[in-house]
Amino acid sequence: MTQKKSTTPKTTVKETVKKTSNSYFEEQEPGVKLEMEYTEHLMDTKSQFQKVDVYKTKAFGNLLTLDGLVMTTERDEFFYHEMISHPSLFIHPNPEKVLIIGGGDGGTLREVVKHKKVVEAHLCEIDEEVCNAAKAYFPTLSESFDHPKSKIFIEDGFAFLDNNKSAYQVILVDSTDPIGEAAKLFEESFIKKVYDSLTEDGITVMQCENPLYKLDVMEKMYFDMKKYFEYVYFYFVPIPTYPSGYWSFIMGSKIMHPVKDFRKKRWNNKDFNTVYYNKDIHKAAFALPEFVKNKLGLE
Amino acid sequence: MTQKKSTTPKTTVKETVKKTSNSYFEEQEPGVKLEMEYTEHLMDTKSQFQKVDVYKTKAFGNLLTLDGLVMTTERDEFFYHEMISHPSLFIHPNPEKVLIIGGGDGGTLREVVKHKKVVEAHLCEIDEEVCNAAKAYFPTLSESFDHPKSKIFIEDGFAFLDNNKSAYQVILVDSTDPIGEAAKLFEESFIKKVYDSLTEDGITVMQCENPLYKLDVMEKMYFDMKKYFEYVYFYFVPIPTYPSGYWSFIMGSKIMHPVKDFRKKRWNNKDFNTVYYNKDIHKAAFALPEFVKNKLGLE
Repeated sequence: MTQKKSTTPKTTVKETVKKTSNSYFEEQEPGVKLEMEYTEHLMDTKSQFQKVDVYKTKAFGNLLTLDGLVMTTERDEFFYHEMISHPSLFIHPNPEKVLIIGGGDGGTLREVVKHKKVVEAHLCEIDEEVCNAAKAYFPTLSESFDHPKSKIFIEDGFAFLDNNKSAYQVILVDSTDPIGEAAKLFEESFIKKVYDSLTEDGITVMQCENPLYKLDVMEKMYFDMKKYFEYVYFYFVPIPTYPSGYWSFIMGSKIMHPVKDFRKKRWNNKDFNTVYYNKDIHKAAFALPEFVKNKLGLE
Repeated sequence: MTQKKSTTPKTTVKETVKKTSNSYFEEQEPGVKLEMEYTEHLMDTKSQFQKVDVYKTKAFGNLLTLDGLVMTTERDEFFYHEMISHPSLFIHPNPEKVLIIGGGDGGTLREVVKHKKVVEAHLCEIDEEVCNAAKAYFPTLSESFDHPKSKIFIEDGFAFLDNNKSAYQVILVDSTDPIGEAAKLFEESFIKKVYDSLTEDGITVMQCENPLYKLDVMEKMYFDMKKYFEYVYFYFVPIPTYPSGYWSFIMGSKIMHPVKDFRKKRWNNKDFNTVYYNKDIHKAAFALPEFVKNKLGLE
């Protein structure tokens, strides 16, 4: 271990740039950066909505960033994609129609179509460039775009929900952070639209930031969701390349209980072939740390 | 978000150095660095055993490093110290004598002495400079050095164990990574010494690296521990400033079962005043991810 920052070699000879190691970093919190060395900057696009970049990193395989923020890496994507998908799908008795809002990389879709009960899996992504990045550089994420159950809509999530009332048993909100285009996905008006597009027994799951840096965001989401859903529960997952490495999802459910209604008999590791999720992890993920309970005023 | 590395301002005027923001980083895995900006380098000592540094960081309060590796920060230390301590102490029916090996910052000791059942809490740290750093710069960690139950030994852990056979109900190994001086704390000969220094119903807990980068270290520890202990279980905790942000502890227990023998009636949040640990977290922490189960050959 050295403690002094090493100097990244600089070069002005264009031909050698791709062979030179460079660094991508995200400032996760003021004064805290996660830095990943990369050998190639594979994609560097400005879409209608955001900057879309793909880097070939040394440690995490290919890395997708949107507006400079880590979305997913090949090495640790399983934590996020398994955990946004399976908990609600193992709770609902009959998740025939599932909607993913965002999630243009395809990782969530890949997990959803594993469920025999799922007949249709719709993905509504606003930015086609994200899907293009996945198809070109993340084959293990995008493998289910052409699955018989899959249907891809390149549309705005708000308008899509307005046109699809009471349509889905499960809606997964696989969004970026609450800044820029995605900020409106953390507003109460969006929660109401999601509620209205769910069936009477519907369940939604939204990615919901991390408790160390963004506990206030979590608190607001919790109380906004409580206005609509009978059951609102956080659950947690490690995600090494996300800020603090420790992430939350929030589940809103109209009648099913997140733990009591867990259909564990449906689980078998051969059909689902998960890396992280299993029936023990399902139950464990819902345990609330003391500081989160205190923030939410829970016993 | 910017994606280009900002240039750290350099200065050669000595008087202004302390006011200039500098960065500490740890290379957590080849090609991955966690960087923390600091405003002061408070301690910069070479002890008989290792380099001991304390930084005043912008985001995490004071940071202690040993040989350049993050040991603890004021902001996220509760995850580690609560979780190395409470699980075993809430399992053992009568943890009268507890030994901490390493843990010279005092954080583990602070949690141990909260237990009414604990009569004596011994801390055996090889490097007095670590204790000195804690006393000077981590008052919330070192507050229990002078507690009536506490006794501090500045000694080598191996020799200390040889002189204290069948002496402790609980032994907590609060070590650094398995490199340098601490490497021997991950060897089978050390596990045997710990086993022999436990009472007939004893329990040990050792920090045991992270499953994303160091699954092989975890696997070796697991099978070495199984040679001695009836029950060997991993449990997990988020630690934002440690490599991957996702950490494991390994528990070896002679007769008590980590979950079935959990004495939940002993728990109340007023006496323990924890930030992370509670009775739900206790049970949840033992859930094994699918990839860890597969590595260990478990069902």
